[in-house]
Amino acid sequence: MRTQTVTLFEPPDVLRLECGRTLGPIDVAYETYGQLNAARDNAILVCHALTGDAHVAGCHGPAGEKPGWWDEMIGPGKGIDTRRYFVICANVLGGCKGTTGPGSINPATGQRWGLSFPVITIEDMVKVQKRLVEYLGIERLLAVIGGSMGGMQVLEWAVRYPDCVAAAIPIATAPRLNAQSIAFDAVGRNAIIADPNFADGDYGEKGPTRGLSIARMVGHITYLSEESMRRKFGRQLRGTDRYRYDFRSEFSVETYLDHQGQKFVERFDANSYLYITKAMDYYDLAARAGSLQAALRDVRAAVLAVSFTSDWLFTPAQSRQIVDALLANGRPATYCNIDSAYGHDAFLLETRRLGDLISAHLANAAGRPERPCAGTTVPAAQTRTTSPLRSDHARIEELIEPGARVLDLGCGDGELLARIHDAKQAQVLGVELDADAALECLRRGVPVIHGDIDDELSKLATGAYDVVVLSQTLQTLPRPDRVLREMLRVGRVGIVSFENCAHWPRRVDLLLRGRSSAGQDGRFGWYDTPHLRDLSLHDFERFCRRNNVTIRRRVALTGKGVVHRLPNLRAAQAVYVITSASGS
Amino acid sequence: MRTQTVTLFEPPDVLRLECGRTLGPIDVAYETYGQLNAARDNAILVCHALTGDAHVAGCHGPAGEKPGWWDEMIGPGKGIDTRRYFVICANVLGGCKGTTGPGSINPATGQRWGLSFPVITIEDMVKVQKRLVEYLGIERLLAVIGGSMGGMQVLEWAVRYPDCVAAAIPIATAPRLNAQSIAFDAVGRNAIIADPNFADGDYGEKGPTRGLSIARMVGHITYLSEESMRRKFGRQLRGTDRYRYDFRSEFSVETYLDHQGQKFVERFDANSYLYITKAMDYYDLAARAGSLQAALRDVRAAVLAVSFTSDWLFTPAQSRQIVDALLANGRPATYCNIDSAYGHDAFLLETRRLGDLISAHLANAAGRPERPCAGTTVPAAQTRTTSPLRSDHARIEELIEPGARVLDLGCGDGELLARIHDAKQAQVLGVELDADAALECLRRGVPVIHGDIDDELSKLATGAYDVVVLSQTLQTLPRPDRVLREMLRVGRVGIVSFENCAHWPRRVDLLLRGRSSAGQDGRFGWYDTPHLRDLSLHDFERFCRRNNVTIRRRVALTGKGVVHRLPNLRAAQAVYVITSASGS
Repeated sequence: MRTQTVTLFEPPDVLRLECGRTLGPIDVAYETYGQLNAARDNAILVCHALTGDAHVAGCHGPAGEKPGWWDEMIGPGKGIDTRRYFVICANVLGGCKGTTGPGSINPATGQRWGLSFPVITIEDMVKVQKRLVEYLGIERLLAVIGGSMGGMQVLEWAVRYPDCVAAAIPIATAPRLNAQSIAFDAVGRNAIIADPNFADGDYGEKGPTRGLSIARMVGHITYLSEESMRRKFGRQLRGTDRYRYDFRSEFSVETYLDHQGQKFVERFDANSYLYITKAMDYYDLAARAGSLQAALRDVRAAVLAVSFTSDWLFTPAQSRQIVDALLANGRPATYCNIDSAYGHDAFLLETRRLGDLISAHLANAAGRPERPCAGTTVPAAQTRTTSPLRSDHARIEELIEPGARVLDLGCGDGELLARIHDAKQAQVLGVELDADAALECLRRGVPVIHGDIDDELSKLATGAYDVVVLSQTLQTLPRPDRVLREMLRVGRVGIVSFENCAHWPRRVDLLLRGRSSAGQDGRFGWYDTPHLRDLSLHDFERFCRRNNVTIRRRVALTGKGVVHRLPNLRAAQAVYVITSASGS
Repeated sequence: MRTQTVTLFEPPDVLRLECGRTLGPIDVAYETYGQLNAARDNAILVCHALTGDAHVAGCHGPAGEKPGWWDEMIGPGKGIDTRRYFVICANVLGGCKGTTGPGSINPATGQRWGLSFPVITIEDMVKVQKRLVEYLGIERLLAVIGGSMGGMQVLEWAVRYPDCVAAAIPIATAPRLNAQSIAFDAVGRNAIIADPNFADGDYGEKGPTRGLSIARMVGHITYLSEESMRRKFGRQLRGTDRYRYDFRSEFSVETYLDHQGQKFVERFDANSYLYITKAMDYYDLAARAGSLQAALRDVRAAVLAVSFTSDWLFTPAQSRQIVDALLANGRPATYCNIDSAYGHDAFLLETRRLGDLISAHLANAAGRPERPCAGTTVPAAQTRTTSPLRSDHARIEELIEPGARVLDLGCGDGELLARIHDAKQAQVLGVELDADAALECLRRGVPVIHGDIDDELSKLATGAYDVVVLSQTLQTLPRPDRVLREMLRVGRVGIVSFENCAHWPRRVDLLLRGRSSAGQDGRFGWYDTPHLRDLSLHDFERFCRRNNVTIRRRVALTGKGVVHRLPNLRAAQAVYVITSASGS
C-alpha cells in the first residue's frame, strides 16, 4: 500500500527521549504489505537503514517508478513472503520521509525545527516503532528484520521488548559502531556543517548541497568494497579517452560519486543526515549494560545474525559479537557469513542467499521448519537423505542424556543435531564451515554458527555445554590437540568419533603393499583426502593419558557392530566419551 | 644537513611535462645525510609520500623540533645506515616545501601559479629528481627507496632509468591506484574545491582551510586500519564523560581528526594537495606499456617490495603485482609482507622489521650480504647452522645443472638455494611462508617471495623455471596434488623429496604397535606434526603414473646412503626427479 501517516504521542502523551527532552506529537509514515492474520501473529517489522524510508516494496506511483528499497526481498513468494506474512515498514524518527524530524514544523514555534530538534537515538526510534505496532493492533511481532542501522533497531527491539519479538534478524550490523565508522560519519557531518549554506541548520530550499553531497560520497565508498569498485569502475575514464590534465572529474568512479552525491541532495535532508548518523554513533548496547552479554541477557527472540565477507563498514566480526554474547547467555542463535564482493551494500543485493536464510528462520519462528526434523514421518521424496544414517551417529545419540546442552563441531547439515533435539529434547548448537550445510541446519531448525571450529571454540564460555561432539571431524583439523583441549573446556563431556588407522586392513596395506593408509577407500587419495590426521585407538588413548583426559567410555565399531576384543586391530572406527581429568 | 635549494632547468633548458606543457626554471629543495664515497656508488635516494618533504631525518632546528619524517629509519646504525650510505631526499615537484609548485611564483606573470600551474605527474617528479642526482655528481644510485607515493617514484626510477638504479625498494605502494583510492582522493579534492575560500585556487593567506581539513581527515582514516583505530580510540569520549547530545566533536576519534585537519592546514597548501593527489591518481605503469609486465621489461634493479598486512589503501596484493610482473620477466625480486596492525601508516612505524629488510637488501646491492653464503669459509661462530646439512639437500644440489633457473617451494632460510647459487651459478628464487625465514633468505642474498606456495605457483608463468624444488614440503601441503601439477607447469623439471611412510620401522609401528606412523620421531605427535600427508614411494609413483608425470630419476635414501633394492621398504626418504609426460 501507499505510505500512510499516523500521529502518535498526541497530548497529553509525549515521548521521553534518551537525551532527557520530550517530543510529541510525532507523525509516523509507514507502509504495510500482506494481511495480518486472525491470530495477529504473522506481523514482521522491517527497519530501514540510514537513508531509507517506509517504501520498502512494490511500486505505487506511475509506471516506471522505482520499486521499494527491498523489493527483491519482500513480496509474494520472496524471502519475506507477503502471502504468509504481514510486513510493516516505517520511516524512522528524525528522518525526512514523512516521520517527524528536524525538517518538520515545531508546533511550539510554527517554524522548522532545524538544529533545535532534540538529538534522537536508536532507542527513541524503536520506542516510536513500538507505538506504531501497538496502534496496528499487534502485541507480538513474529520478527523484526533490518540491515545496517536497521539491524541496530532489531537489536534494540529484542533487548527492550523481549516478549514482543519471536524472531530477530539483524543483518550487516553491529551492537555499536567502531572508531573507523564513527570517523567516516564525523567527516560527513563536518562537510555538511562546513558548507556556508548550512547556516547552522536554518537553511531554506537550497541547503548545504555541496557538503551533503560530499558526505554522501564518503558514505558511498564505505558501502562498496575495494573489489566491487574494482569490478564496477576500475580505472576507466568517462567522457574522455585520455587524461585531460585538469581537475574536473574524469575517472568513472569520480563521476559515479558526483552523480550519487547529486541525486542524494535531491532526496535527502542535510539536518536528518546529521541526526541519524549521530544516532548511529551514539548507539552502544554494551556500554549501556556494562557488557554486550549483560545487555542481551533478557533477549528471548530467536536470533539469526547475517554478515557479508567483504563488508568493512559493519564487519562480520561485529555480527559475531552479537551471536557470541547470546551464546554466552545460553541462548541459541544462528550466524551466517555470506560470501559476497558487494561490501556493505550486499545486504540489499545478495537477496537470494539472504532470502533463503530469512525464509528458513521465519518458518522456524512460525513453527513450521522448511525441512522436517529427523524422526518425523514424511514421504521419502521430501526428506534429504544424502547419506544413510551413520553408525557412529546412532551410537552418539544413545550417549546423550535427555535435556542436555549439546554442541556439535563440524555438524554438517545438522542431521545428528536434529535427531538429538527431537529424541532427547536437547538444546543444540552446531558449528559448520560450509555455507550450504549451515543453511540446511537452519532449514531443519538447528541453530548453527557458520564458521571455523577453532575460532568458535575460543569464544565459547567454559562449561557452556554438557556435551561437545566431534564426529568424524578430528581427522580433518589442522590442530586436533588444541580442539580436544578446548572442547573439554567448553563442555563437561566430549564425544569423539574417528576412523582407526590401525584397523587390520590398513595395517596389511602398509605392511604388504607399502601404501599410505590414508584415503584408501577409493574416494580420495593420500593427496586429497580431507583427513589430514591419521590416528589409531592406541594413539588417541595415549594422547588422553598424556593430556589429563579421562576416557569414560569407548565404543569400538566394525561395519557390523561393536567389538570388545582387540579393538585397535578390529575396529574400523570408534566413539569415545571423554572428560577432563579434573571434570565430572 | 639543513634543506638546500638548487635551481634546475634554467633557460634555455626546460622540463617537458607529460601533459605536453613545459616548465622551468624549477627550484628543488633537498637534504643529504652521510658522505658520498670516492666511487660515488653509495648514494640512496629516498622519495617521500603525499605530504612529506625533504627533511627526512635528524633535527636541524631549535631543541625540541620535530625530527625528520623517517628519522627512525635513517641515521648512523639505522636501517639506512648513514655511516655507510649517502642519503638524498628532495621535496617533489608540485609540492609546497621548497620545490616549485602551484604556490610558487610564475616568472612569466610575477603572480602565484595557482591552478594555472601545469598538472604534473609522477613521471615529471622523477625527471626532476634525476636532474638533481646528476647535479650532485651521481651517475648511478645504489638504491631508490620510498613508501606510498614515494614507492610509485621508486618504480618510475627503475623503469625510466634502468642503468642508474642498482636496487629499488618500493614500500606499501602500487603500480597504479585502485578505484577505491581514487575515490577517496576525489572526495578530498571535492571538499577543497567546494570550499568558498578556494576561489578557483587564487586564495590568499587564508585559503580553503575547512575543505583542506576535511580532505586530510578522509586521508587520515585511510592511513590507519580499523584495528589501529580501535586500539587507539575505540569509542572513548574526549572532554566529556557522557554524550552531550549536540553536534560538537565528542568521540576521541573525532577530536583527533579535527586536530589532524587543523594541524595540516597550517603546514600544507591546498593547491599542492590537488596537484599531488592528481599525480597519484594518474600514475598507471601498466596502461602506459600495455601491461605491467611490459612496463617493467627493462628493469635491472634488484627489487625488494614490502607491504603491510593491514594496509588497505595500498594493499599487499598491489605490491605482489609488482613482484609477479618482475618474475614474469625472468627478473629476480623479493617480496615481504610485514604483519602489522598500523595500516598504511605502518611504513612509517614498523621501522624495525622494515629496517632489517632494507638493510639486508642494501648490503646485497653493495655486494656484501649480511650472511655469508654457503661454501664461503667463515669462522663457525658466524655461520647460522641450526641444522646439519640435510642429506636430501646434498642430493638435490647434485641434480641441478649449472646456470639453471631454480625455484624452491618452501625454501626455509634459503640454505639450499644459497648453496645452489654458489655452486652452480644458478638463478634462484625461494617461496617461504615464514617471515623470519624469508628475512634470512634476504640476508643470504637469496631472492624470496614471502607467501603461500599455492598462491605463488598460480601466478608464475608456464615454463618460467628449469627446476622447481619441493624439498620435504610435499607432506605439509593441504593439496599436494595441485602443487605437483602446478610445479610441472611452472618448471621443466621437478625435484621432490619426502619421508617414506612405508619405511620398515613405520610398518612395524603400525603392524605390531598399532600406532599412527605420523610424527613418531619424538618431536611431534599425530596431532601436531606439520606433516599433513603421509605417503610412500609406492604411493608417489602410483600418483605419477596416473597423472602423466614421468619419473626421470629416483634416489632412495637411508640415513646412511642410497639404497637400490626394496626402496619402498628400506628407504627413510627419497628424492625424485620428475617431468610432465609431455615435457622434456
